[in-house]
Amino acid sequence: MTDADLSRFSINQETVKQWSLPELVEGCGKAGVARVGLWRAPVQEYGVERAARLVREAGLTVTSLCRGGFLTASEPGARAAALDDNRAAIDEAAALATPTLVLVSGGLPAGDRDLRGARERVADALAELAPYARERGVRLAIEPLHPMFASDRCVVSTLGQALDLAERFPVEEVGVVVDTYHVWWDDTAAARIARAGAAGPGGGRIAAFQLADWVTPLPAGVLLGRGQLGDGSVDLRRFRELVDAAGYDGPVEVEIFNEGLWARDGAEVLAEVVERYAAHAL
Amino acid sequence: MTDADLSRFSINQETVKQWSLPELVEGCGKAGVARVGLWRAPVQEYGVERAARLVREAGLTVTSLCRGGFLTASEPGARAAALDDNRAAIDEAAALATPTLVLVSGGLPAGDRDLRGARERVADALAELAPYARERGVRLAIEPLHPMFASDRCVVSTLGQALDLAERFPVEEVGVVVDTYHVWWDDTAAARIARAGAAGPGGGRIAAFQLADWVTPLPAGVLLGRGQLGDGSVDLRRFRELVDAAGYDGPVEVEIFNEGLWARDGAEVLAEVVERYAAHAL
Repeated sequence: MTDADLSRFSINQETVKQWSLPELVEGCGKAGVARVGLWRAPVQEYGVERAARLVREAGLTVTSLCRGGFLTASEPGARAAALDDNRAAIDEAAALATPTLVLVSGGLPAGDRDLRGARERVADALAELAPYARERGVRLAIEPLHPMFASDRCVVSTLGQALDLAERFPVEEVGVVVDTYHVWWDDTAAARIARAGAAGPGGGRIAAFQLADWVTPLPAGVLLGRGQLGDGSVDLRRFRELVDAAGYDGPVEVEIFNEGLWARDGAEVLAEVVERYAAHAL
Repeated sequence: MTDADLSRFSINQETVKQWSLPELVEGCGKAGVARVGLWRAPVQEYGVERAARLVREAGLTVTSLCRGGFLTASEPGARAAALDDNRAAIDEAAALATPTLVLVSGGLPAGDRDLRGARERVADALAELAPYARERGVRLAIEPLHPMFASDRCVVSTLGQALDLAERFPVEEVGVVVDTYHVWWDDTAAARIARAGAAGPGGGRIAAFQLADWVTPLPAGVLLGRGQLGDGSVDLRRFRELVDAAGYDGPVEVEIFNEGLWARDGAEVLAEVVERYAAHAL
């Protein structure tokens, strides 16, 4: 246990991927952590209803479910399958009683070089999914991913683009994710955070705030290059202050994909994350 | 030899790094290529004056010299050394009779998380270097690098940021580099190219235009991940049309750092680059 104020702290499941879902729940209890962000695959593996009961009975709040999205397919069959899968993700989020489904938009289809067209297909898909999500008490949260993922993972690369998409919909239906790892380099991020916050109370369009640090060299494939808080170049506290100033008072979720962390004892990693959170973000 | 219009084509030396400078000059002659972009290290190794004579006598035009920059140090000694090195780079550019010295700004000093401060130090350095360059007939060309290089290589990540810096100086002193690899993901790039072009005749602030394609997965360290033209996600022709529409009528330089290309025969690579250039950029 720590003396740090963990009232907004949430640990994303992927940060301690070495833990099974029951281990995560038990580990959070021991560490005094009351909020978790979950991922679909481990939840499905454990059973959605069973997972929902496990976290509920442990008194844990699920701050977000990662992730829906991958909505850029142009081929009709692939597109219909993606929409079906996203409706399932919305159902899972509702079952877990989390208000937030994180969406990673998807990259360019093979051979396609039209980023703008792909972004428009994301908008079209949001129009189909947003009412379904709203009926189930779930808000879609568009996560801009770092531009290095633009071709293969997410054609939405900046908070500005995410807001351009989100603002086509009511604020209670579609928000954005502010993840320091993805936006730290962007000199327009501060203004975009303010713009997101101006959309309403409680942070407006800011549906989730996630922390990870930027460290180099990047590993091959770059996906698992996220750094432990404090190890890198991101002024984490400044971003926490920016979302706070925008009116956001929701969870601060730590999401780090890092093979070095996964190779260690889960409880040790969680304790270190808590300590770093207090030192660098509070 | 090819039928393609190579009147604007320039091969950046680093694309055929397996070639020595004399091999490059000879290979360009055989391929009907009249323009080259050079790098400081191989030029220095060969001897600056000797290199200048070699390319001049072969009738080659040097479209740019890569690179100066790395101007973000805050420690006074390191800062003075960087300025000295950039004055040397300007002298070398002048000796090679190229009008364009490409500047890569530099990353964050160790332990520093203040991107804005680092960008301001770049501006301060430009103010010291621009008059020196102008006296020697060289324009400083700020190259925004992809945001994945923001911490360790270049704190200037977008054309917008590069223009914000350049516009503090006369258009004939400081311009920007448009490199498709670095800016392709940015939905504001088209507007920025137009803004650069509006600064004057001949493309205004556009001091150089470089082509490389974006391919994944990125290799470890990501520096050598640039793709052969046509192999990736970038709509190269659209960018060529954008710079043209902005009034730019200068060289189109192909700059690809790729170990796969370096492992092959230089003449074969140059022929392939020319063919891809004609197919994807003309």
